[in-house]
Amino acid sequence: MIKITFPDGAVREYQPGATSLDIAKSISEGLARKVLAASVNGEVWDASRPINNDSTLKLLTWNEKDGKSTFWHSSAHLMAEAVESLFPGVKFWVGPPVENGFYYDMDLGDRKISEEDLHALEKKMNELAKTNSPYVRKEISKADAIDYFSKKGDEYKLDLLQGLDDGKITFYTQGGFTDLCRGPHIPQTGLIKAIKLTNIAGAYWKGDEKNKQLTRIYGITFPTQKELDEYLLMLEEAKKRDHRKLGKELGIYTMDDDVGQGLIMWLPNGTVVIEELEKLAKETESAAGYKRVVTPHIAKESMYLTSGHLPYYADSMYPPMELDGEKYYLKSMNCPHHHKIFAAEPKSYRDLPYRIAEYGTVYRYEQSGELFGLMRVRCLHMNDAHIYCTREQFASEFRAVNEMYQKYFRIFGIDKYVMRLSLHSPDKLGKKYVNAPELWKETEEMVRQVLIESNIPYVEVQDEAAFYGPKIDVQIFSVIGREFTLATNQVDFSQGRSFKLEYTTADNQTETPLIIHRAPLGTHERFIGFLLEHYAGKFPVWLAPLQVKVLPISDKFSDYAQNVLESLKNADIRAEIDNRHEKIGRKIRDTEMAKVPYMIIIGEKEVNEGKIAVRRQGKGDAGSTSTESFIKEIREEIKTRSAG
Amino acid sequence: MIKITFPDGAVREYQPGATSLDIAKSISEGLARKVLAASVNGEVWDASRPINNDSTLKLLTWNEKDGKSTFWHSSAHLMAEAVESLFPGVKFWVGPPVENGFYYDMDLGDRKISEEDLHALEKKMNELAKTNSPYVRKEISKADAIDYFSKKGDEYKLDLLQGLDDGKITFYTQGGFTDLCRGPHIPQTGLIKAIKLTNIAGAYWKGDEKNKQLTRIYGITFPTQKELDEYLLMLEEAKKRDHRKLGKELGIYTMDDDVGQGLIMWLPNGTVVIEELEKLAKETESAAGYKRVVTPHIAKESMYLTSGHLPYYADSMYPPMELDGEKYYLKSMNCPHHHKIFAAEPKSYRDLPYRIAEYGTVYRYEQSGELFGLMRVRCLHMNDAHIYCTREQFASEFRAVNEMYQKYFRIFGIDKYVMRLSLHSPDKLGKKYVNAPELWKETEEMVRQVLIESNIPYVEVQDEAAFYGPKIDVQIFSVIGREFTLATNQVDFSQGRSFKLEYTTADNQTETPLIIHRAPLGTHERFIGFLLEHYAGKFPVWLAPLQVKVLPISDKFSDYAQNVLESLKNADIRAEIDNRHEKIGRKIRDTEMAKVPYMIIIGEKEVNEGKIAVRRQGKGDAGSTSTESFIKEIREEIKTRSAG
Repeated sequence: MIKITFPDGAVREYQPGATSLDIAKSISEGLARKVLAASVNGEVWDASRPINNDSTLKLLTWNEKDGKSTFWHSSAHLMAEAVESLFPGVKFWVGPPVENGFYYDMDLGDRKISEEDLHALEKKMNELAKTNSPYVRKEISKADAIDYFSKKGDEYKLDLLQGLDDGKITFYTQGGFTDLCRGPHIPQTGLIKAIKLTNIAGAYWKGDEKNKQLTRIYGITFPTQKELDEYLLMLEEAKKRDHRKLGKELGIYTMDDDVGQGLIMWLPNGTVVIEELEKLAKETESAAGYKRVVTPHIAKESMYLTSGHLPYYADSMYPPMELDGEKYYLKSMNCPHHHKIFAAEPKSYRDLPYRIAEYGTVYRYEQSGELFGLMRVRCLHMNDAHIYCTREQFASEFRAVNEMYQKYFRIFGIDKYVMRLSLHSPDKLGKKYVNAPELWKETEEMVRQVLIESNIPYVEVQDEAAFYGPKIDVQIFSVIGREFTLATNQVDFSQGRSFKLEYTTADNQTETPLIIHRAPLGTHERFIGFLLEHYAGKFPVWLAPLQVKVLPISDKFSDYAQNVLESLKNADIRAEIDNRHEKIGRKIRDTEMAKVPYMIIIGEKEVNEGKIAVRRQGKGDAGSTSTESFIKEIREEIKTRSAG
Repeated sequence: MIKITFPDGAVREYQPGATSLDIAKSISEGLARKVLAASVNGEVWDASRPINNDSTLKLLTWNEKDGKSTFWHSSAHLMAEAVESLFPGVKFWVGPPVENGFYYDMDLGDRKISEEDLHALEKKMNELAKTNSPYVRKEISKADAIDYFSKKGDEYKLDLLQGLDDGKITFYTQGGFTDLCRGPHIPQTGLIKAIKLTNIAGAYWKGDEKNKQLTRIYGITFPTQKELDEYLLMLEEAKKRDHRKLGKELGIYTMDDDVGQGLIMWLPNGTVVIEELEKLAKETESAAGYKRVVTPHIAKESMYLTSGHLPYYADSMYPPMELDGEKYYLKSMNCPHHHKIFAAEPKSYRDLPYRIAEYGTVYRYEQSGELFGLMRVRCLHMNDAHIYCTREQFASEFRAVNEMYQKYFRIFGIDKYVMRLSLHSPDKLGKKYVNAPELWKETEEMVRQVLIESNIPYVEVQDEAAFYGPKIDVQIFSVIGREFTLATNQVDFSQGRSFKLEYTTADNQTETPLIIHRAPLGTHERFIGFLLEHYAGKFPVWLAPLQVKVLPISDKFSDYAQNVLESLKNADIRAEIDNRHEKIGRKIRDTEMAKVPYMIIIGEKEVNEGKIAVRRQGKGDAGSTSTESFIKEIREEIKTRSAG
């Protein structure tokens, strides 16, 4: 018998040669139907591959990233089978899973693939899926593999084989299609219930434009039709909500060649959003006992040698400026400057926890090909803060940080989020991780307990901590279900020592503080990019660059409308008037397009009755009221940061 | 007869050979007694020098900078006369006027000057002044001059003579002392009524440390004893109010070798001041119709070639970072980025005036020897804004900017200020100045009219405008009378064209806007440096980092005190509690030292009566009141930004 250890620590015994599927069935048939692959001793295997020794086992389903990847990789094989059946003689290069779906690169000779071909291929793939053919793994000698693809006449696979060692080569076969592949794959094609081929593109062989251009077909598949439908709907919505399109239409931001790539210039409307976010952060942080600081954007090389950013992180930094025989760098993180502020005045235990916050602007070098709207930029305004505390204070400080996240999530209507807790690996202490086993154990357990007690959805990942402590990556989902990485929280045992930070304890000893790095609102760039999609550009009133537009029906009502405008402005409401000689329908349409939350229409009736007519963006007429009561209501809506 | 033209345009006729003093006497004896020198055709002359041709004339008194300089230069000669009389054989190098007073460098052989010597010299100078000797100018040939100093054995003056052209050499003599000097000088020594020798220092000959070290004696003189007394009092006060000393004591800012010279890190207390200033600026600018923007701190070389900062201003910028084959520079001004924001979206006359503001952070390279506390730094947070307007809008926009300055001056209790209006010079159009004579005439006249109508004290300076338009330098004086340059306002005809900025006029033409550059609060660095001196660190309540400190007399009253603290915090008042086991006297003393505006003392009486005892910083007991009415009063004091 072999011993199988499950993720919860339970151990069960099985016959040698049992597959992960067998083991899943021994637990429940329902579970077995969902198993796509398995992590065996940390390596992803076919669920149908026999296990012969004592092992740790994690069953992988659609909910696990590796489960999804395996599903899409198998779908690429299914697509290749369909292509070969419709276009015999096709030769294949590689077909990997990607973030959303998969692709396969192929040589179709002179043939061009059309939209109709994609439909035919989808139909064929559905047929093949229904045959429910198993994916069969076979170890094969290099000689036999070469023989197989020589006979098939596929020079691309022969090229791939050249780079592989004999004894480590495997074939996978499903139905009538065999591929050179290291796997793993799902148990059988029948698991693939919904298929969409999304795109055709050209791709140079091996990415080299001197080589032949191959045809790349992209697709995505799901275990149910419902999930595919939702995905396609989400794609359509995401297109409408594209932050680059909305960012331009709403005057949020711009870029300029003379300024430089990835360097956002925030236009007046975007700056209103920035200021409201900063106001929220400052209020929240002030109430939570943070103090604010302001630090320069540059520092000397020596600081980044101390922090360890240099030389290890140099590729992600802007190059140095040489001045007076010194090298100055644009900062890529705020922590070293904050450590210097901690150190500037002597600290005692009475000063701890010492929490300092700054919307710090950092500069990071991203390859120009990776720059993308507000999501991947080179200048970031970060909702940064550092908390210097004792070990006794750590858990409550960390809990408070999490509560701050949750407070923000409520304000922004972020219902779905997950925290990814990255832990160290004990065998890499002193190498990949600071050699402080007790501190690791202690803080990891503290962090875990806080997550559990605060009822925060989280997953644990081994061996992905930062050098100096466990970290938490916060993933949030927009209303249309797209995932964004918002921010990283880190616990830090190490930089306090590197920077020789100290405080005096109650019994007059000298201690190094623990440090928490946190940035709940991430960066303005990424967060506002997220919000544009999340709200489809229809910001709640408190965030809206323009909150109210006053629309007089004709010039006759301009004076009255102007008075209403002044009352709004005096009440600190962001308001404008539309005095153009346009029909009221046109004025309403333009204001709707500009996504201004409230319109106030002023016509004969309103002037006679001393009232205003209110319209809500996207919702139409909201009735007649007095200016005073409208102001009272909208001010309450702004003050409570209502979602509207 | 010769024609003399006065600054007001009046012309009078005099006999050829009349001196400026003669002319002053012809106007009034009182005026003549105050004349120190004269500007004749733009050149500063002795008031006793004959005028032989038609000339423009401006009489210079103590109120003019050139009058003061002449006075102090003559005082240096007077000091040299006293030195020579007390220490025969002394040799002199140079003795110029400086910003406050004068110095003279001399070779005293082995003799060391002591404090007592300074007193003896002052006494001697007073004696010599009372002789009321005239300063007599004499043109002399180079040969005669060399002969004179050879006989005297003064190799320093002989060295100076080597560099002078024959025919342009003059001697000045007062009493028994003759100096090689190009002048000008005041009419006679009797004008110098009050003398103080302030400092003795060493100075290498010609500033080269390989040369002999000379003795430098500093002094200052005044036309009345009262002015000297005031000056000495101001010096004493300024020492107590030194912003570097207060900045450290009050936790305002710090610097660090690893960050770099001249790069201020703002500590929590300093950041409170920054945030309050920015809040004031944002409120004021928002009410004045400005919109806010946020721009990056770097841009590509091409932008600064367009703006003209490169290559002309390169020495004042940080060196470039080279990335992807491009040069990026830290910005030293915000204007180019703002111009790009103006250009990012099409503009029509309806969008003008377009006012955009940003507390932009700029980086400027200052020589390390010139760095000084917060006054001369390399990173500056600037209260910047640019107004893009039509020619018709210019005057009212410029007036509004001036009114904003005056509003700020009232808030900060700046009673004394002066605006220095720098004009172009018509003969340098197309060279030093943009060749747009009509625009120069028009805007200079508009600016002048606004200054006059707004009753703003100003002086005009010819030939000191910026390349692209007239500018105004704003000088303010702290309560102890020290002068600070706060900011520069500029009118700009030129950058709009360089950046191809355009708007569509009402009749569908394309026009380039005029641009006003303005920064009424200057930079945080310089303004907070000024405020530290101005308030002697005792900020008014609205600016005070900590507004209230609650001081329980003993532990028994901690709960009550804590409740008071919470009420204050809930009312957004910056408050702390002093829970140390210290006597109340010590707590009060420490809080006074920290310059916290209000103290609330809690003892038995207060707890029994449900009241609080209030103390005002520097003013002692302010009586007993309820927490509610104290909060009401202090909130009003904060809201109105009362000077306290």
